[in-house]
Amino acid sequence: MLFPSLIERKRDGGVLTPDEWRATITGYLADAIPDYQMAAMLMAVVWRGLDAAELSGLTQAMLDSGTRFDWTGSGRPRVDKHSTGGVGDKVSLALAPLVASCGVAVPMMSGRGLGHTGGTTDKLEAIPGFRTDLSLDEARAQVDRIGVAMFGQSERIAPADRRLYALRDVTGTVPSIPLIAASIMSKKLAEGLSGLVLDVKAGSGAFMTSPEHALELARTMVTIGEAHGCRTTALVTAMDRPLGRAIGNALEVEEALLALDGRGPEDLLLVTRALAVEMLLLAGVTTDRPAATRLVGEALASGSALAKFRELVAAQGGDPGVVDDPGRLPQALEVELFEAPAAGVVAAVDPRPLGAAVVAMGGGRRRLGDPIDHSVGFVVSARPGATVAKGEPIASVFARDAEGIATGLAALGEAIRFGPATVGLPLISHRVTARGTESLG
Amino acid sequence: MLFPSLIERKRDGGVLTPDEWRATITGYLADAIPDYQMAAMLMAVVWRGLDAAELSGLTQAMLDSGTRFDWTGSGRPRVDKHSTGGVGDKVSLALAPLVASCGVAVPMMSGRGLGHTGGTTDKLEAIPGFRTDLSLDEARAQVDRIGVAMFGQSERIAPADRRLYALRDVTGTVPSIPLIAASIMSKKLAEGLSGLVLDVKAGSGAFMTSPEHALELARTMVTIGEAHGCRTTALVTAMDRPLGRAIGNALEVEEALLALDGRGPEDLLLVTRALAVEMLLLAGVTTDRPAATRLVGEALASGSALAKFRELVAAQGGDPGVVDDPGRLPQALEVELFEAPAAGVVAAVDPRPLGAAVVAMGGGRRRLGDPIDHSVGFVVSARPGATVAKGEPIASVFARDAEGIATGLAALGEAIRFGPATVGLPLISHRVTARGTESLG
Repeated sequence: MLFPSLIERKRDGGVLTPDEWRATITGYLADAIPDYQMAAMLMAVVWRGLDAAELSGLTQAMLDSGTRFDWTGSGRPRVDKHSTGGVGDKVSLALAPLVASCGVAVPMMSGRGLGHTGGTTDKLEAIPGFRTDLSLDEARAQVDRIGVAMFGQSERIAPADRRLYALRDVTGTVPSIPLIAASIMSKKLAEGLSGLVLDVKAGSGAFMTSPEHALELARTMVTIGEAHGCRTTALVTAMDRPLGRAIGNALEVEEALLALDGRGPEDLLLVTRALAVEMLLLAGVTTDRPAATRLVGEALASGSALAKFRELVAAQGGDPGVVDDPGRLPQALEVELFEAPAAGVVAAVDPRPLGAAVVAMGGGRRRLGDPIDHSVGFVVSARPGATVAKGEPIASVFARDAEGIATGLAALGEAIRFGPATVGLPLISHRVTARGTESLG
Repeated sequence: MLFPSLIERKRDGGVLTPDEWRATITGYLADAIPDYQMAAMLMAVVWRGLDAAELSGLTQAMLDSGTRFDWTGSGRPRVDKHSTGGVGDKVSLALAPLVASCGVAVPMMSGRGLGHTGGTTDKLEAIPGFRTDLSLDEARAQVDRIGVAMFGQSERIAPADRRLYALRDVTGTVPSIPLIAASIMSKKLAEGLSGLVLDVKAGSGAFMTSPEHALELARTMVTIGEAHGCRTTALVTAMDRPLGRAIGNALEVEEALLALDGRGPEDLLLVTRALAVEMLLLAGVTTDRPAATRLVGEALASGSALAKFRELVAAQGGDPGVVDDPGRLPQALEVELFEAPAAGVVAAVDPRPLGAAVVAMGGGRRRLGDPIDHSVGFVVSARPGATVAKGEPIASVFARDAEGIATGLAALGEAIRFGPATVGLPLISHRVTARGTESLG
């Protein structure tokens, strides 16, 4: 294969065969294709896109570059959820134990936070002792035993994706829907799932700011999943404001505990329940949507979801006492209230400055491997549309020092905008399945 | 400067400032910008193009990466010609001495052949002893003395272009009109010219096969030249058939000698005269086109153009005896006639298979540094539109062995097509200047 001729074909709007995508990935991992040729190819893909057969071929080649879960002998259906990432998105923490408590196996492999969005493994590690570095064998054994495991991305899963992502990150080739879709799906398909639910976020706090692009990404990933025999459903959800009130690792764990107890903020509960229902339907626990909704409600009301979370924490070496006493989570040294500067209506709470501020305050990382202070973050009680009085406390900053408090207060000042109430994105706007797209908003 | 942010801007259709293009070129040459980032940028430029200010900024940065001719104290106007390359294009060999014999200084820096088109320095080196590796000082001294020098591209001229071209060659980023134009013009502007004439070839034997693209390239280069204070005129000429009859280094020298004596093939003479007239006008030898045409005719008829060529050959160490006895040029060991396979009309002579065959027969190079057999090539006497009898000799193959003869005969069989006569491209279709485009075809 002459790789430049493949670059030229993609540059000119042509398509590569699945075998050519396989040779591309194999050649790149073997260093037969240098970074500079792959970078040119990636930019040509950003330009020209990939058709369905190319998407499937590229995803398969990335998937085949690594190992995958072997569930031989495991009887239960396995379903996972993946979120494209947002600010305050602690859904996984509540969702995995909730669905597992309904009898579905949930092998949930998650990433770390990078940039302004947090990562589920970072949040879990706010729990003292919690181990996310399970081996694939440990993860499988735990899923077989208690129905759920939440663990970091193994280096053995889709190594081609890791190398490609590192190159995309420094060559301006990240924002490509087909490349994003292939990257996510190559890792999710390695989990050997019966079904997958995708939470595709739209808005300023998400990677896809426009709802149209979020919907296109959702459709692209559903197409790939179904082409690889994994039943896939996507919900497009709002990230033009933070999800829930808490932003920051320990604060989000605390809020997820509220949700597992049925007391969480309404938007968080709505999204978590909706995703749980889709997972139960994909797992075949029931084929009836009202029945699935009822099961989810019972798991929350009965305490079985919260009990499953306690079991999960204990299984992974964490302190299960946090479930009943969130005060055992890391506590910020400094806390300060943010007061409404004037009476008025909250027009918007922009998630992006808040996500960026958590990183600046030490609660996220600029580079992989940076240490994290799990205690810092925000609780924003004012929601868009709320009428507030001058001086009313509408948010809190949690920081490790005065500088962090100042950073946090400035971010709140930027994020919380006053003025005429505007219409935000529907919390859950679309459901995408193999059968098509339903508008829910 | 964060280079990825510049890649992203170009990817999204934005423009870079001239300072940003300068920082890009400087950073690349200093290895602060790695090949993989530059490759992504180049593909983004292929996609999005460059506007006039970017073109000028990039060209200037490439020009400034190296040295340039210093003509301080030289009185004569200096004009050069550049061809975008074609098959059988020996125009430079006749044109440079012709124009020099009319009193214009011609410092002609040329490339080597690569791919299916030949290079002027290779053709000159078919003359025994001819040196093309003049230093810039030697070249200038010779131009001062005899009015003309023909020499290879110095490594000191536009080194950024050389590095960028090597990267473009392996990343599918060659065919971009702005990148081609900036590459050519950065080298030509380093010659410190008063004027530049461009011969932009269109057709299957050229890099720009479509006349529209050739015209766009011509306009782009004229814009750059004028923006840098170099008066620039471009002619768009036909390369849907070979220029003249001879293809191959020594054979083309022999044909150029015929042209310098006014006896050359008509198409070669027409293109050479037309370019010479433009050069005389740019040099200000006269402002009157008929007068320029008359001067060119006289230089050919009087023998002064041929005498200048003899002087040039002697000045650069070559055997001036070849001018009167072309038999002193390298002679092919094997020669064979190609006969018309049937009676009919020659519909087309496709230059590309013939150019490729010269390379395969040892007369061109696949990689820089490959040795060349100057003797091999073709003389194609049948022109498109000619009516030929079955068995009539219509071409000759010159090769070093039976294998070369077979390669050459096969190429002639592919190149010479019979059938209803078709209309070829006008020999000279457009003249492009700062004032606009004139259709001549």
